[in-house]
Amino acid sequence: MPPRSVEVWFATSNSHKFREASEIVKEYGITLRRLPAKGRELQSDSVREIAGSAALETFASVRKPLIAEDTGLFINALNGFPGPYSSYVQETVGNAAILHLLESTEDRGAEFVTAVAYCREPSKVRVFVGRLKGRISDAVRGANGFGFDPIFIPAGSARTLAEMTTHEKNHTSHRYLALRAFGLWRNRVRAG
Amino acid sequence: MPPRSVEVWFATSNSHKFREASEIVKEYGITLRRLPAKGRELQSDSVREIAGSAALETFASVRKPLIAEDTGLFINALNGFPGPYSSYVQETVGNAAILHLLESTEDRGAEFVTAVAYCREPSKVRVFVGRLKGRISDAVRGANGFGFDPIFIPAGSARTLAEMTTHEKNHTSHRYLALRAFGLWRNRVRAG
Repeated sequence: MPPRSVEVWFATSNSHKFREASEIVKEYGITLRRLPAKGRELQSDSVREIAGSAALETFASVRKPLIAEDTGLFINALNGFPGPYSSYVQETVGNAAILHLLESTEDRGAEFVTAVAYCREPSKVRVFVGRLKGRISDAVRGANGFGFDPIFIPAGSARTLAEMTTHEKNHTSHRYLALRAFGLWRNRVRAG
Repeated sequence: MPPRSVEVWFATSNSHKFREASEIVKEYGITLRRLPAKGRELQSDSVREIAGSAALETFASVRKPLIAEDTGLFINALNGFPGPYSSYVQETVGNAAILHLLESTEDRGAEFVTAVAYCREPSKVRVFVGRLKGRISDAVRGANGFGFDPIFIPAGSARTLAEMTTHEKNHTSHRYLALRAFGLWRNRVRAG
């Protein structure tokens, strides 16, 4: 018998992320409810640190069990750029700039990293990380997904994340891997 | 008679900035002393907000009159990129990437913005902003300065900031304009 669903709040300003995460954690008996992000995010090259700090800060003001999430795309040939500054890079120069910068570059290796930070008591946070290795495509491909999805091809795949169905992406992605780790842990804790 | 020199602390991890700022504020009777930056910087597209928040946070832990500084280079054709994420962009893709992204772009207009935030009592901060309009050069030029200096030509000049002498740069730059506003205000307040 599946465990009764528990409610966890998700502090995010990104509705794509909220929809995706809600879909993913349902399988683990978790219902996500949305909180507005506090809008103050740390500058750091560590998604762990950004998500952890956001969870702690948001918890301090709302006092509900919650997650915060941060994702970065780290491109080898660009020394990790754009890293955790994805939304800023998306809003300014976009995917075209990434392709342009890699134009004559053979090494197209990259990694997507998501950190999901869970907090339900002051000053205590637990962070779950999901990593997806892959490469940057030669062109923007696919209309599903958001952000860098149309230029990222997971290792072992011939398609970008934006060319996958939602169901496929939600069982492949860095965000899935981090949220699965969170969901499995959450259920172990409840069962124990 | 010049006023007796006052001490103000400067929280920064950047030794170029510290040296430059010390030189500039000397003229206003201010001696800068260095504090390590707290290493937690806000993600924001506003240098005002980043500097203000850094000053308040550092003051809360050291309780000394201090300044914090943030600078961004906002390039018109790149919708404001790299903005306040200068050090991250410098450490990853560098000036070459900026030139590459602007390769076939006619509009090379850009603006450097520095915010200097001064704090000497809890929860109170005053921010001084310096703006320098100019354009992005076609190539990296000059060995003086740091960061984006070798690719930024101030309006009315034929040389990049990195081709100027230190004395010239320190009487031209965005950082000079912000620190001058701070220095003049500081002296008005002391005299009043």
